Parts: sequence; C-alpha cells; structure tokens
Amino acid sequence: MLKKNVANVRVMYADTDAMGIVYHTNYIKWFEIGRSEFLREIGVLYSRMEEEGFNLPLTEVYCQYLLSAVYDQILRIETEIAYVNRASLRFNYRILDEQGEKAFVEGYTIHACTTREKKIVRLPKHILEKLRVHAPPEEGARRNS
Amino acid sequence: MLKKNVANVRVMYADTDAMGIVYHTNYIKWFEIGRSEFLREIGVLYSRMEEEGFNLPLTEVYCQYLLSAVYDQILRIETEIAYVNRASLRFNYRILDEQGEKAFVEGYTIHACTTREKKIVRLPKHILEKLRVHAPPEEGARRNS
Amino acid sequence: MLKKNVANVRVMYADTDAMGIVYHTNYIKWFEIGRSEFLREIGVLYSRMEEEGFNLPLTEVYCQYLLSAVYDQILRIETEIAYVNRASLRFNYRILDEQGEKAFVEGYTIHACTTREKKIVRLPKHILEKLRVHAPPEEGARRNS
Amino acid sequence: MLKKNVANVRVMYADTDAMGIVYHTNYIKWFEIGRSEFLREIGVLYSRMEEEGFNLPLTEVYCQYLLSAVYDQILRIETEIAYVNRASLRFNYRILDEQGEKAFVEGYTIHACTTREKKIVRLPKHILEKLRVHAPPEEGARRNS
Repeated sequence: MLKKNVANVRVMYADTDAMGIVYHTNYIKWFEIGRSEFLREIGVLYSRMEEEGFNLPLTEVYCQYLLSAVYDQILRIETEIAYVNRASLRFNYRILDEQGEKAFVEGYTIHACTTREKKIVRLPKHILEKLRVHAPPEEGARRNS
Repeated sequence: MLKKNVANVRVMYADTDAMGIVYHTNYIKWFEIGRSEFLREIGVLYSRMEEEGFNLPLTEVYCQYLLSAVYDQILRIETEIAYVNRASLRFNYRILDEQGEKAFVEGYTIHACTTREKKIVRLPKHILEKLRVHAPPEEGARRNS
Repeated sequence: MLKKNVANVRVMYADTDAMGIVYHTNYIKWFEIGRSEFLREIGVLYSRMEEEGFNLPLTEVYCQYLLSAVYDQILRIETEIAYVNRASLRFNYRILDEQGEKAFVEGYTIHACTTREKKIVRLPKHILEKLRVHAPPEEGARRNS
Repeated sequence: MLKKNVANVRVMYADTDAMGIVYHTNYIKWFEIGRSEFLREIGVLYSRMEEEGFNLPLTEVYCQYLLSAVYDQILRIETEIAYVNRASLRFNYRILDEQGEKAFVEGYTIHACTTREKKIVRLPKHILEKLRVHAPPEEGARRNS
C-alpha cells in the first residue's frame, strides 16, 4: 500500500479574496504543507536535506480548481508520490473538505534535486531509498511522467 | 497581429524565500498582473466586469520554472490570449528579465465566466467581442485546448 | 484567571525570505490565528459574527521583533485580551518557540466593531459579555489604552 | 527640504480579503516598497548593501488604519526618514489614494543595521552620510525615538 499523507489547514482571513473565497495561489502554497508533511512522515526532514546541501525547487506546478473553499473551513490536504527519478520527483495533491467528501483542487508539483548552487544532482541515496518505498512501480512512473 | 501585453514588476523582499530566490507561487500571483493589464489594454476593466456581476475565477493553472529571479530584479510579464470560448478563456504568460532575454517561467491560466453566485455563464457580448480580436483563430484554439 | 489562548503554527518555506528568516509581516498574519483561536476558545466564532453582520477590522497594529524564527520551526502564539470597550477591543500577542522559552515577537492589534458597511457600532451584547469575562478590569483597560 | 519619496502600487486581487478590502498586512508589505524606493532615490541600493554584508531587519512596526483601499485602486506610498542613529533608523509612511487626498494608513518601521550573522553594527559610513542629509536634525530625532 502506498503512503498517502493527510495534513490539515484552516483557512485564514488572510487567505481569502474579494470574491469571498480562497485566493487561488494559496492552495498551491498549501501543497507545500502536503509534501513537507509527506516527507516528514516517511522520515525525510526537508530542513535537514537543506543543511546537507540539497534543495528540491519546483520545475512545474499544475492545479485544477473544482470548488471554492471559504474562511474558517478546515481543509484536508492529501499528498502522494507520483514518481521518483534519480534527480526529480513528482507529488500529486488533493485538497478536500475536512470530511474528505468534496475536492476543492487537485494538482501536482514536479521538483528537481539541486545543490545550493542550483546544479541538478542525483537525490542523496538514503533519501531516494525512502522515497522509492512510497512511489508507484516504474511502469506507473513512466505513464505519469 | 495579436496583442501581447507587457507589464513590469520589481521583486520585493517579501517575494523571496530562504533559498534566496522568488518563492514559486509569486510568479503565479504576477500572472494576475499580466492578465489584468492585458484586459485593461484592450478596454476591459475587470473591476467594472465585477460590478456588472461577472467573475473570471481560475479553473486551471500551469507554470513551468526555468530560471530563478532574485530580490530587486525588474521582471517583464508577457501575456497573450490562447483562446476564447463562450464561457471560458485561456491566457498564456512568460515572465522574463527586464530586457526580455531570459525567461524565468512560462505558464497559463484558464478561467470560467461566472455570476457572483458562481454559476457558469456566457461572457458578456461586449467583452467577448473585445477578447476575440486578440485571440488566435478557431483552429489554434482547438489545438491548445 | 484571565484566559490566554495558545495556538501553534509551523513556519513554511513560503513564510521565509532571502535573509533566511521569517518575513516580518507573517508574524502579524499569525496574530490573526491567535485572536481567532482565542475567540473560538471563549465561544465566539468570528465567521458567525460576520454572518450576523459584524466585522472586527483592525484600526492599529504594533509589533516588536526580538528574535528571528526560521523554516520548519513550530511557533507558539499566545493571545490575551488587553481591554474591551463598547465598540473596540485590543488583543496582545507573543509568538515564541514551541517550548515557550524565547519570544520572537510581541505586539498588539486594536479592532473596531463595524457593520458590513464599515459603520462603527457597539459589539453585540452576547459577544461583549463573553469578551469581558476574559478582559482585565477597567483600571487596567484605561492604563493600556 | 527633506526628501519625501513617492511610489505607486496598484491593488491586486491577491491583496484583497473576504471583507472586499485590502488585507491589513499588505499595507505593511507596501511600506517595503516605500523605503526601498526612498533609498534608491538617495543613491542607496539595498541589494548592494546586502552584498556588502549589511542588513536592515525590522525591530518595530506600527500601522494605523484610517480608510479601506479596494481592488484595482492605485495607491500612493509616501516615505520619509524620521531619524537616523548610528545603528538604527526609522521611516515614516503614509499610503494614500492616487491623488494624495485621503490616507488609508499611516505608520512607521524601525530598523537595526546588522551583519549577515544578525550582529548589530554601525551603519556603513557612506550610507549613514546619505541618510543624514534627508533626516530631521537631532532634536527631532530625539523626540521621535
């Protein structure tokens, strides 16, 4: 069974806009909570990865907006790994209401592994191994990439 | 010749993150500047559109990150219409350095036309007409959508 | 004993800036979490207050920066009421590390009670009563205001 | 005559909240535009100052909210120096409508001069000299501090 991380966030007034709903970039900001909690749950601390000299900057982001969340709602962020390559990986996200009954957005982010100097490098071996446990097998990875 | 709007924005400290570069959602926030200035240039004021009871909420966003912008850089936001349908439209964006020589990101947003109550409706006729002047012909629209 | 609400928030990458620390306005954004959780704890839902036609817009904010928080730290937001008047109130905040041993910032916000049309009005009686239970007695209120 | 820098910013949808007005921390974010443009105008580039190893982190911020700005308004940010000490300085700000007729907010920020390692140090001599030209004489500084 592949890992699906579930994190929660409550919509702040700061997150809303004049349409009375969550401003669209905030869901993408919450994707960050999803993937950092995913990584924490499988034993990868992004802050430690940075101390070791590695970053995971975004190379792509996609988000589809299905329904609008509003002030004070508790949202459920579901995060999975779509694939892991030697120097890149993709997370899939869904943000739903607290009960997980209706989805507000769905999306993904693709990340490269780089040094502090932004040079693309292989993921550190101990991290790659932890990620691979929770990534779909190669076949799936190829289909999604 | 189709319209390409060019707007500028300077990177604030507020836009940067601990990697020393622009945090990824800020480019998507700047897409908003691009499309609102595009609309203003062709005579469509989004604020007036709202007063008339219409919104253009996002249904999809995509962004590809190519290079990293840093604090105090002046960025050039280029915006074009990819297609216009009766109740939706797509903008394409590129954000480059001030000279327009290197691209930091490329992306698009797709919008639905809705009433204040979030019901999808046709774009008001006078706006649709203005948009169509600057949208590629139907053939292109179908290819991109 | 007066109520002190304690809420927690984890620093996101989105909250940091190129100095490698939390960008200064984010602490003030977290004050919002502090006061909304304070209100929730004493039985006042700000979202319901809005439905009843009342807002609590800020009239003043002050923040003193003592130490810098960094990425991935868990912060402890402590919130108290400094005073409650008929149409205004003040919250005091401290944001500390998770253990509550060192303070990153201290500050306050003052709010007016208004209608949706921004007219200043008295706080609804049932809310005023709940707030007063947790506000210092009049003497203190006068000293702080 | 002391320098008053005037900068402009247009309210984005991203800056608004569900009350239909600008979310309160955004004015404080715009103070950053005010002071960086003030410094640029008197020949001090903050980005260069950082390259030379100096930062100007905030030690205090205060903001009073007078009126509410809304989506698409052009705002006028007025910035002045209130005082300059050897290792700290204060800027005063007003944010008004485009014509400068009504003020939305007034406030100030106080900054320390630090090294990259957050040690408080004297302002570099060439910067201190430029700042002093545009700061009120000592008497005023003492009254304001």
